[in-house]
Amino acid sequence: MEHDVVDTLISPEGQLEVLSKAEVFKLLDTSQGGLYQIFRNCALAVLNCGSTIDDGKELLERYKSFEISIVQRERGIKLEIKGAPAIAFVDGKMIKGIHEHLFAVLRDIIFISSEVTDNPKFDMSRTEGITDSVFHILRNANVLQPLRNPNLVVCWGGHSINRIEYNYSKEVGYQMGLRDLDICTGCGPGAMKGPMKGATIGHAKQRLTGGRYLGISEPGIIAAESPNPIVNDLVIMPDIEKRLEAFVRTGHGIIVFPGGAGTAEEILYILGILLHPDNADMPFPLIFTGPETARDYFIQINQFIADTLGEEAQKRYKIIIDDPEMVAKEMQLGIRQVREFRKSRGDAYYFNWLLKIDEEFQRPFRPTHENMRNLSLHKNQEKHLLAANLRRAFSGVVAGNVKDEGIRAIEKFGHFEIHGDAAIMGPMDALLSSFVAQSRMKLPGKAYTPCYRVIT
Amino acid sequence: MEHDVVDTLISPEGQLEVLSKAEVFKLLDTSQGGLYQIFRNCALAVLNCGSTIDDGKELLERYKSFEISIVQRERGIKLEIKGAPAIAFVDGKMIKGIHEHLFAVLRDIIFISSEVTDNPKFDMSRTEGITDSVFHILRNANVLQPLRNPNLVVCWGGHSINRIEYNYSKEVGYQMGLRDLDICTGCGPGAMKGPMKGATIGHAKQRLTGGRYLGISEPGIIAAESPNPIVNDLVIMPDIEKRLEAFVRTGHGIIVFPGGAGTAEEILYILGILLHPDNADMPFPLIFTGPETARDYFIQINQFIADTLGEEAQKRYKIIIDDPEMVAKEMQLGIRQVREFRKSRGDAYYFNWLLKIDEEFQRPFRPTHENMRNLSLHKNQEKHLLAANLRRAFSGVVAGNVKDEGIRAIEKFGHFEIHGDAAIMGPMDALLSSFVAQSRMKLPGKAYTPCYRVIT
Amino acid sequence: MEHDVVDTLISPEGQLEVLSKAEVFKLLDTSQGGLYQIFRNCALAVLNCGSTIDDGKELLERYKSFEISIVQRERGIKLEIKGAPAIAFVDGKMIKGIHEHLFAVLRDIIFISSEVTDNPKFDMSRTEGITDSVFHILRNANVLQPLRNPNLVVCWGGHSINRIEYNYSKEVGYQMGLRDLDICTGCGPGAMKGPMKGATIGHAKQRLTGGRYLGISEPGIIAAESPNPIVNDLVIMPDIEKRLEAFVRTGHGIIVFPGGAGTAEEILYILGILLHPDNADMPFPLIFTGPETARDYFIQINQFIADTLGEEAQKRYKIIIDDPEMVAKEMQLGIRQVREFRKSRGDAYYFNWLLKIDEEFQRPFRPTHENMRNLSLHKNQEKHLLAANLRRAFSGVVAGNVKDEGIRAIEKFGHFEIHGDAAIMGPMDALLSSFVAQSRMKLPGKAYTPCYRVIT
Amino acid sequence: MEHDVVDTLISPEGQLEVLSKAEVFKLLDTSQGGLYQIFRNCALAVLNCGSTIDDGKELLERYKSFEISIVQRERGIKLEIKGAPAIAFVDGKMIKGIHEHLFAVLRDIIFISSEVTDNPKFDMSRTEGITDSVFHILRNANVLQPLRNPNLVVCWGGHSINRIEYNYSKEVGYQMGLRDLDICTGCGPGAMKGPMKGATIGHAKQRLTGGRYLGISEPGIIAAESPNPIVNDLVIMPDIEKRLEAFVRTGHGIIVFPGGAGTAEEILYILGILLHPDNADMPFPLIFTGPETARDYFIQINQFIADTLGEEAQKRYKIIIDDPEMVAKEMQLGIRQVREFRKSRGDAYYFNWLLKIDEEFQRPFRPTHENMRNLSLHKNQEKHLLAANLRRAFSGVVAGNVKDEGIRAIEKFGHFEIHGDAAIMGPMDALLSSFVAQSRMKLPGKAYTPCYRVIT
Repeated sequence: MEHDVVDTLISPEGQLEVLSKAEVFKLLDTSQGGLYQIFRNCALAVLNCGSTIDDGKELLERYKSFEISIVQRERGIKLEIKGAPAIAFVDGKMIKGIHEHLFAVLRDIIFISSEVTDNPKFDMSRTEGITDSVFHILRNANVLQPLRNPNLVVCWGGHSINRIEYNYSKEVGYQMGLRDLDICTGCGPGAMKGPMKGATIGHAKQRLTGGRYLGISEPGIIAAESPNPIVNDLVIMPDIEKRLEAFVRTGHGIIVFPGGAGTAEEILYILGILLHPDNADMPFPLIFTGPETARDYFIQINQFIADTLGEEAQKRYKIIIDDPEMVAKEMQLGIRQVREFRKSRGDAYYFNWLLKIDEEFQRPFRPTHENMRNLSLHKNQEKHLLAANLRRAFSGVVAGNVKDEGIRAIEKFGHFEIHGDAAIMGPMDALLSSFVAQSRMKLPGKAYTPCYRVIT
Repeated sequence: MEHDVVDTLISPEGQLEVLSKAEVFKLLDTSQGGLYQIFRNCALAVLNCGSTIDDGKELLERYKSFEISIVQRERGIKLEIKGAPAIAFVDGKMIKGIHEHLFAVLRDIIFISSEVTDNPKFDMSRTEGITDSVFHILRNANVLQPLRNPNLVVCWGGHSINRIEYNYSKEVGYQMGLRDLDICTGCGPGAMKGPMKGATIGHAKQRLTGGRYLGISEPGIIAAESPNPIVNDLVIMPDIEKRLEAFVRTGHGIIVFPGGAGTAEEILYILGILLHPDNADMPFPLIFTGPETARDYFIQINQFIADTLGEEAQKRYKIIIDDPEMVAKEMQLGIRQVREFRKSRGDAYYFNWLLKIDEEFQRPFRPTHENMRNLSLHKNQEKHLLAANLRRAFSGVVAGNVKDEGIRAIEKFGHFEIHGDAAIMGPMDALLSSFVAQSRMKLPGKAYTPCYRVIT
Repeated sequence: MEHDVVDTLISPEGQLEVLSKAEVFKLLDTSQGGLYQIFRNCALAVLNCGSTIDDGKELLERYKSFEISIVQRERGIKLEIKGAPAIAFVDGKMIKGIHEHLFAVLRDIIFISSEVTDNPKFDMSRTEGITDSVFHILRNANVLQPLRNPNLVVCWGGHSINRIEYNYSKEVGYQMGLRDLDICTGCGPGAMKGPMKGATIGHAKQRLTGGRYLGISEPGIIAAESPNPIVNDLVIMPDIEKRLEAFVRTGHGIIVFPGGAGTAEEILYILGILLHPDNADMPFPLIFTGPETARDYFIQINQFIADTLGEEAQKRYKIIIDDPEMVAKEMQLGIRQVREFRKSRGDAYYFNWLLKIDEEFQRPFRPTHENMRNLSLHKNQEKHLLAANLRRAFSGVVAGNVKDEGIRAIEKFGHFEIHGDAAIMGPMDALLSSFVAQSRMKLPGKAYTPCYRVIT
Repeated sequence: MEHDVVDTLISPEGQLEVLSKAEVFKLLDTSQGGLYQIFRNCALAVLNCGSTIDDGKELLERYKSFEISIVQRERGIKLEIKGAPAIAFVDGKMIKGIHEHLFAVLRDIIFISSEVTDNPKFDMSRTEGITDSVFHILRNANVLQPLRNPNLVVCWGGHSINRIEYNYSKEVGYQMGLRDLDICTGCGPGAMKGPMKGATIGHAKQRLTGGRYLGISEPGIIAAESPNPIVNDLVIMPDIEKRLEAFVRTGHGIIVFPGGAGTAEEILYILGILLHPDNADMPFPLIFTGPETARDYFIQINQFIADTLGEEAQKRYKIIIDDPEMVAKEMQLGIRQVREFRKSRGDAYYFNWLLKIDEEFQRPFRPTHENMRNLSLHKNQEKHLLAANLRRAFSGVVAGNVKDEGIRAIEKFGHFEIHGDAAIMGPMDALLSSFVAQSRMKLPGKAYTPCYRVIT
C-alpha cells in the first residue's frame, strides 16, 4: 500500500455518544437498506482532509481497505477504524477537529435516515415539507442557535484558487473575524478554508472564543471537499439542493470569491432566489470579491449575468476588488439591515423562514446525460426560472468534474451536451472557457479535460 | 377570583427554543388532534408547584382561566401565559426552575407527539419497541449522559409523609449528596422533595456543581405531584408504565421511603421485574428506609411481601431503620457492583439495556372499573406475574385517589371492586387499611374516603 | 485517643497552589517569628467544623497531636495533615468545602504576614492605613468583585440559637436566595449557618450557580465558630476590628438575628458607625428579625438602645417579627437605595469607601481585666463614642465566654468588672441577664458561668 | 496631526479592576516618584501594536499628545485614553487583545512599584532575592499555573525577519500547536509573532481552547516590540535581566529562529546559564531552526559559538534546517525529559527553581559608553562568564539600535567601542557584519547605521 494508513479506536466527544440498539444495528448493516456504505464513504472523506485529492472516485480507490465500525461500551459507543489516511493523525493521534467531524457525520446520517427519510411527517412533494426537513436536520445538528445575533457569513468560491486569491480570502476572513462575524462555507480547501483561517486569527485577537466555522456538505461532494479541521460545526445535508437551501436559510449574507463551475452554480442559485418576486424587498448582502488578479474573473461573471439575467440581477450584488476591510464593513452593514428586517417581521435570526425558494431550486437535479441535454436554456421564461436552469447546467459540470458518480458517467457515456439559445450559450461557453483557461476547474497541477460540450 | 394569578411572557432557557412552523401550529391547535390541552394542563401543574393541592381535578377547576400560548420571535419562541398561579413567582418574576420546567414539558410533548406517537419506527406491540421509545424520549431530554459514572439513586415514597419522615428523607439525601450521588424522583412534595433538598446541601458542601435532580413525571400524575423547582432535569413520559420503565432503566439503585398506595405500586413494580428469571444475577440495590416512626410501616410492607411474593422477593431488598449514613454507604456499595456488572457486560452506564422488563409491566393499564374488577390476584401464577397484577391493583387505587380521570370515574360509578384469593386479599386489605389509618393516602388535613373495596 | 482522627495529604484547589520557597519556609517555621502556630490552630478550627464545641481552648486540647505541614511538589504545594478531626471527612475523604477553607486560611495568613504586617506601605496609626490594609486583604482573597451588583447581605446573630430561631433564619435565607441576594456571615453555626443553607435552596431553585456564601473570620474566633462548608468564600482578617470593618465595607445591608453578647457587640458596632455625623445621609439597610419567639428579645434590645443611644439610633434599623418574605423584600429595597447612592457618588459597589469609621472602632481592643475595668461607660460623650465603648464591653464578654485567651484570663484572674453610669449599667445588666436567662451565651446543653460582673 | 488617533474610555476585563485609592493616586502622579510616565509609555507601546515602527524614540515623538488616565467608577476603575494610535481600533472599538494588554501593563507596573521596589522582603543584592522577585511578579500576573503539564516553548528570533523566515516560524508554531505545545515570546513582530499565529491554527484544529500565548516584555523594549494581540498572557518585567530570567524559569524549552543582535544576546544568555557547572545534568531542549534560506545564518552562529565557547556549548543545542515537524517532535521529546527530571526532583513544573543563574546574568547591565568599553572579552575566564560578557556586548548593540535611551546616547556620544581579544573580536565582528549584510539589524526598508565599533 503506497499511502500511509492508521488503525485506531476513538470515543465520541460531544452530543452523539448515545445510540439505541436499533441505530447501531442500522449503521453496521452493509445491506442495501443499511447505512454502512454512505457512512464509510463520508467518514473516509472527513479523514482525508488536508490531502490534495479532489476526486471522490480516486479517494475511494486509494483507501479500499478502509473500514469503520461501531462498538458499544459502558460509556456509549466507540468507533473502530482501520486503514484510515495517516494525514488525519498527528503522531498517531487523530486531530481533534477531524475526530469531531466523524461524529457529526454519524449524527447526521442517523438522523436523516431515521427521522427524515420515509417519515410521513415531511411531505417532500411540497416546498414546505422540504424546507421543514432542512430545518429539522439543522436543528438536530445544533446549528440553529437562537441567542446569537445575525453574524453568519457564507463564503463561496473555488476550492482550487491560486496562492494570491487564497491569501486574499484569508485577509477577508481576518477582517470579518475582527468584527465578530462568523464563517460558513461548503468545507474543503481554497476559498472555503482561507476565510476560516483568517477569522480564527481575528477572533483570537478579539478574544471571541465562541467563533463559529460552520461547514455544510453533502455525501456526494464531501469526498472532493473534505472539511478542514477548523470547521467546528459540520453538517451533512442529504443532497446538493438541501445543502444550498441550508446555506441561504442559515447565512445572513454571502461573499463569493473567485472559483469555477461550482461557484457559478452557487451564484446562479442565489440570484435565482433573490429574483423571485416574493423576495424583492428582502435585504440580503451579496458581495463578489477578490484580489486585483481576480478583477477579470468578476468582469466576466458580471458580463454573463448582464447577458443572461439582466440589470435587475446585477442590483442584488456588489463587486469589491482588493479591499478586505471594505468587504467586511459592507457585510457588517448589510447584516445590520437583515437584523432590522427580521426584527420588524418577527422572523427568526437563525433561520430565514421568509425567504421564498421556488420548488425549482429545491427539487434534486440528477445530472444524467439525458437531463443535461434537456435543460431549458432560453430567455422565454421568468428570470428566476432561467437562473434555475442555468444553475442546473453548472451543477452538471461540477458533477462531471469531481463527483464519483458523475466522473463514472462521463467515463461511460462521454461528454454532457448542453443545448440552448445562442444568446445564452454564447456567454456560457465564453465563461466556461475562461474557467478552463484560468485553471479554475480542478486543483492546480492537473490538466483539465472538459466533461461537457456547449451546443447552440 | 380567589386564587392569585399572574400574567407573563417568558423566553426559553436551554435547548428547545427552536421550533418549526409545523410544531408551533400543532401546539396551538386546540382541536382533538392538537396538543393544546395536554400542554396547557401539564404547564398548569408545573406552575402550581409548592401548593398543597394533590388533586388534579381540583387544580384544573381552580385555574379555569389559565391560558398558555406560543409566540414566534426573532430569537425563537416565547410563551405567553395568562392566569398562572402566583405561587410560581417571586415578586412577579417566575422562579427560574419552574421556568425551565415549562420548556421541558413543551420539549417532551412535542417530541412524543411528533417522533414517537404513530411513528412506524417504534413497534409498540413488542417489548423492544416500547423500550426503544423510552430510550428516545430520555435521550431527547438529554437525560442519558454517557460520561457520568453510575450515581443516580431513584427515591420513591409518599408525597404526603409527616414532618419527621420528611426530615429523615432530607438527611438521607444529604448523606448521599456528600457522597456524590444524584437523585431521581417522581417529582412532587414529601419523599420526592426531601432527598433533593438534602442532596443540594451535600453537593454544595462538596462543591459538586453538576449535581442532578432528575424528575420523571407523566401527564396523568403531574397535576397531583408538581415538580419542585430544585428538579433540574425534568422529563415527561407518555404514561405511567413508561415512567416506571424510565426510573428502572436510568437509575442505578432505588431507595423507598414510607408512602402509601403509590409507593406500594412502585415496590411491586420493581420486585416484579427483579423476580423475572432473566434478572436473577443482576445487581440492583434496593433499600427501604425511614425514621424510627416508620418501623411499623416497613414491617407491614415486609409482611405483605412475605405473604404474597415470598422469601425470594425479600432477598432483593434491605430494610434500614433510622440510619441515613448507612443508607448512603449501602447505596454507594450497591452502585459500585452495578458499575462492575455493566462494565463486565459492556452495557451502558446511562441506560440499563440488560434489565428484562416483561411486557406485563410495559403495557399501559387503564384502571377502569371493569379492569380493576378483572385483575388476576391469585397465587396460581409465576411470582413476577402476580407482582404485575398486584401492581395494577395499587395503580388503580392511586388513580382513584389523586388523578383527575380516576376521581371522576369514582364519582360516577362508585368504588373500584378488587377481587382475589383470600390469601392475597387478606394481606392487601390489611395493608391498605394501615395506609388509611396512618394518613398515607392523601395530604394531611384531608379526610380520606376510600375509592376501592376489597372483595375476597 | 477518644476523638476519631484522620491523616491525609491534600492538594490545593484554586488560587494558592503556588508558593515561593521563602513563603513555605516561613509557614514551616515553628519559632516565634514563624507562622506555624497560627496556621495550625486556624487549620484545626476549620477542620472541626460541624462539631458542637464552641470553646477554642477545649478544641486545642482535644486535638493536641494535630499537625499540618507543607510539601513542595512538581504541581505546587500539598498539605500533609495528621490527627485531623474525623468530622471533616466523609468515608475518609475530606469534604471539599473544608478542603478549600484550609487553603483560604493559608492564603490569608501568608498574605497578612508578608504583605501587611510590618509593611511600611500601611500606616497603621492612621485610619486610612487601616482601611487600606482591610482593602488589600479582601482584594487578595478575591472578595472584591467589581462586576457584581450590590447584593451582599451580612447576617449577624447567635451561634447558639434554638431550633425555631434557626429554622427562621433558614427561611429568611431562602427568601433572600430566591431574590438573588447573597449571604455574608461570621462563619460558625446557628444564625451564621441557617441563612446560608436557606439561600442555597433559594439559589438552586433560581438556578443561580454563582451564589456567594462569604465567611469572614479571624484567628481568635475561628476556633469557636468554625466556618460551615457551605461558605464558599472564606477570609481570615487579622483581628476582630478589621473583621468588623470587612463586614460593613463589603456588605450592602445587615440583618441581625437573635443572639447573645456577640450579637449585641455587632449591633453596637454598626450603630456607632451609622451615628457618626459623616454617615448621616448614607443609606444602610439594617433589619433586626426573628420568629415570634424572639419578639421579647428584640423588645429588650430596642429598649437598651433607646435607654443608651436614643431615638436617633433607633431610626437606623427596622424590627420585623416573623415575616421572612417581608425581611427579604425590605432588604432588596434597601440595597436598591445603596446602589443608587453609590452610583451617584461614583463609589465602588464592592467596597464602601465613603463609610466613615472612627478610629475608635478600628483600634484593636484587648479585653484585659484592666481595659475592661477602665471603659468609659457614661452619657457625657458623643453617641457614637458611647456606642464604641459599649461595643468594647460586649466584646470583652464574648472573649471571656468563648475565646481561648479570654477563657484563660478569666480562669486566672476571675470576673471582668464593668463600671459605668447607673443609667447605662442598669439596662446593660438587664440585657446581659436576659441573655443568660434565655441561654444565649453558650451552645445549649451547657450551664453558663458568667465571666463578668456589672458594677455601677 | 499626520497619524490617526482615537479617544476612548475603556473598562477592564479580568482581574485588575480593583484598585485602592492609594494605588490610583500613585498612577496619576506625574512627579518623579509617580508611575505616570512609565505607565503612559508602556500603554502607548501596547496601543501601537501592528505598526511598523521599531524605534521607541520615534514612537514617543509621533504620539506626543497621547494621554491615559484612571477614572474611579462604581464597578471599579476605567481608563480614559486620548490620542491613541488608530491602529489599535477596529471601527472605533479597541481590539480586545490590546485592551487586555493595557490592563496587564497596569497590573505589573502597580505590583512592581508597590510590592517589589523598595520592599525589604526582596534582598536584591542576593541572587535568591532577585529570583524571588521574578517569581512574585510572575505569580501576580497569573503566569504560574501549577495544573498544566510542562508545554511552554520559548521562541526567540528576530523581529525583522523576511517573509520566508516568517512563514517558516508560523509553520513551526502550527506543528507545535497541533501537539498541544504553548508559545512564549518576547512580543513584537517577526519570529515573536509567527509561532503564535501558527499555534493558534494548530490549537483550533485540536480544539484546545486554553492555548497560551505568553508575552514577556519590559519597559525599555516594549516600544520597539509591541505585543501582538494574539498574546493572551502579557507580563512586564522591570528590566531586561529579569525578563530573560522569566523566560528561562517559566519556559520548558527554547527555539531560536533567525534574528540579529537581540537573538545573539539571547543565545549567549541561555548558553551561559547552561554552561554553569550546576546545570550540567539538567535537561533543557534548545533548538536553532529556520528555513533553507537561514542555513548560512546558523552556520555562522554555530561557528561563532565554536570559536568562543567551544564544543561543550555546542552540545547544548540542535540545529534543524527546514523541518517544522521535526522541530516540534524534538521539542516535545525534550520537554518530556524536562518533566521526568522535575518530577524526580520534586521541582515545580511552572517555575524552574533548580536552574542555577549566576549573579552575572541577573545584575542589570546598563549599556553606557563606559560600560561597553570595559567589557571583559577574553578567553581567560570560565566559559559561562565569558558568555555573560559577550551577552552584554550584544545587549548594548540592541540598545543602540532600538531602545529610546540607547539611541539618544549614540546620537550624543557616537559609537559604542567594544574591546577584546582578537580571537573573540574577530568572530564577533564577522557575526555582526553578517547581520548587517543580511538586514537583520532593523525592520526591512531602513538603512542600518551601526551603533558600535569592534576594536581588537
